[in-house]
Amino acid sequence: MSILVFGHQNPDTDAIASSYAAAYLYQQLGLDTEVVALGTPNEETAFVLDYFGVKAPRLITSAKAEGAEQVILTDHNESQQSIADIKEVEVINVIDHHRVANFETANPLYMRLEPVGSASSIVYRLFKENAVALPKEIAGLLLSGLISDTLLLKSPTTADSDHQVAKDLAELAEVDLETYGLAMLKAGTNLASKSAAELIDIDAKTFELNGHPVRVAQVNTVDIAEVLERQAEIETAILAANQANGYSDFVLMITDIVNSNSEILALGSNMDKVEAAFNFKLENNHAFLAGAVSRKKQVVPQLTESFNA
Amino acid sequence: MSILVFGHQNPDTDAIASSYAAAYLYQQLGLDTEVVALGTPNEETAFVLDYFGVKAPRLITSAKAEGAEQVILTDHNESQQSIADIKEVEVINVIDHHRVANFETANPLYMRLEPVGSASSIVYRLFKENAVALPKEIAGLLLSGLISDTLLLKSPTTADSDHQVAKDLAELAEVDLETYGLAMLKAGTNLASKSAAELIDIDAKTFELNGHPVRVAQVNTVDIAEVLERQAEIETAILAANQANGYSDFVLMITDIVNSNSEILALGSNMDKVEAAFNFKLENNHAFLAGAVSRKKQVVPQLTESFNA
Repeated sequence: MSILVFGHQNPDTDAIASSYAAAYLYQQLGLDTEVVALGTPNEETAFVLDYFGVKAPRLITSAKAEGAEQVILTDHNESQQSIADIKEVEVINVIDHHRVANFETANPLYMRLEPVGSASSIVYRLFKENAVALPKEIAGLLLSGLISDTLLLKSPTTADSDHQVAKDLAELAEVDLETYGLAMLKAGTNLASKSAAELIDIDAKTFELNGHPVRVAQVNTVDIAEVLERQAEIETAILAANQANGYSDFVLMITDIVNSNSEILALGSNMDKVEAAFNFKLENNHAFLAGAVSRKKQVVPQLTESFNA
Repeated sequence: MSILVFGHQNPDTDAIASSYAAAYLYQQLGLDTEVVALGTPNEETAFVLDYFGVKAPRLITSAKAEGAEQVILTDHNESQQSIADIKEVEVINVIDHHRVANFETANPLYMRLEPVGSASSIVYRLFKENAVALPKEIAGLLLSGLISDTLLLKSPTTADSDHQVAKDLAELAEVDLETYGLAMLKAGTNLASKSAAELIDIDAKTFELNGHPVRVAQVNTVDIAEVLERQAEIETAILAANQANGYSDFVLMITDIVNSNSEILALGSNMDKVEAAFNFKLENNHAFLAGAVSRKKQVVPQLTESFNA
């Protein structure tokens, strides 16, 4: 039976790209791997797959149901962000650029974590270390994963090494970094076609903060005000999501990809902790967070500290 | 303030060697690191340090008391095997070859885990990847870490790649692998000079198995019967350790390094689970485990499964 390779739930471009490329890499190295996904590609990722002529990975909801006994995780490690039955299979490898939490194994494994801009950056490094050549479409996917996670190398999560990685990959993918990058990011800002329930689920992850299940979602836009016009409808969707899933709190980042700022819209039981985390005052449930574009670096650590205080 | 680099509590040769070498490597790469240790070297490690003319790392019991804010862990990741105040400092890097458990960070970090024979094997790979030259004494330490953890490449934890690593390192350290390896392992089997309390603590780690704190210790010998002559005294020490530290169970592996077998001596509240783990019957509190030399591969996973059943 194949070793399944997948990124996190609600996959973003980095999750799809890093898992697709890792499955290819380990195939070249002799493992029987298959890339799968825990969700359908978002509009940005759909643009990327179409651009490079790659088919979306097959969707699965259970590893055991596929007959799999071993899995490789990319772009995540926390069990609540993974496949539902993750604890019933053996994780043999993790390639990730997030904090480590809610992750435990019975046996030694491969783990390759680096505090860099994308899981795709690390997968690129693994291709080089193992001297495996990158086909054009794989380079394009990895480049897209890096651009997506760093908002075209502007996020504070961007590592020094990521600039060279982007340059290398753009050359291999035969695209102009800036032109392709902006087109790709803009493809992900088309929110008008989405219901409010879809919008708050485009890129959302749950974090256990001092025992509280906190949902932190992010949407990209070129116009924050346009998204806030739908505030009432979005709040209804958030309250429904909190109730249905038992989230104690929901924090939505509405991120302006052109000016690199975010508006935070938050609802739940611990708004005092959310306000303390960012040292701001929510008015009408939202507040501006200047310069914030990274959930991982500018939102989750601050929430973690505040919830633990 | 320096970044402290250290291996686990009750350091064995691999813990000392991998931390010493990693601190040196990251110094060469521009970080301000200092190797320290959470315990004094055992007799085997003392032989190694003496052989290669290396001073034992400074002993510490608290990272904060040293003024440290960041640490690098080698040869372990579980918090209960680390420094007492591990949760009050930032772990920025982990180099390890064990399972992952009881490990959580607030921020992304470097993590380099591989299911190979020793943490020293991975540190050697990092020297090569970063093109940093290995001084003779560092090569000697890393070789010793690998020999110690794999009982001269005989343990089932030995990876295919470890054979070449041992060959490379023996050449750099200017020793004959077999001759040096046996001399080193024998230096660690001198148990006569130790009290029973010391003996059960030479190489001991605590594991949380389904909520039970289980102590699993290992001693190397060339004569199992000789160790069992001290059974009464050892059992008294084990019962005292269980009571003083709240261990639910104590499992001592008495490992014959020449014939690669172990006698298991076990005392505690869950002897049914210990017997089920190894499918044997304890008689007079002990039983023979043919071919078992690896705590990590032949004892802890079996105990984990049995305690979770």
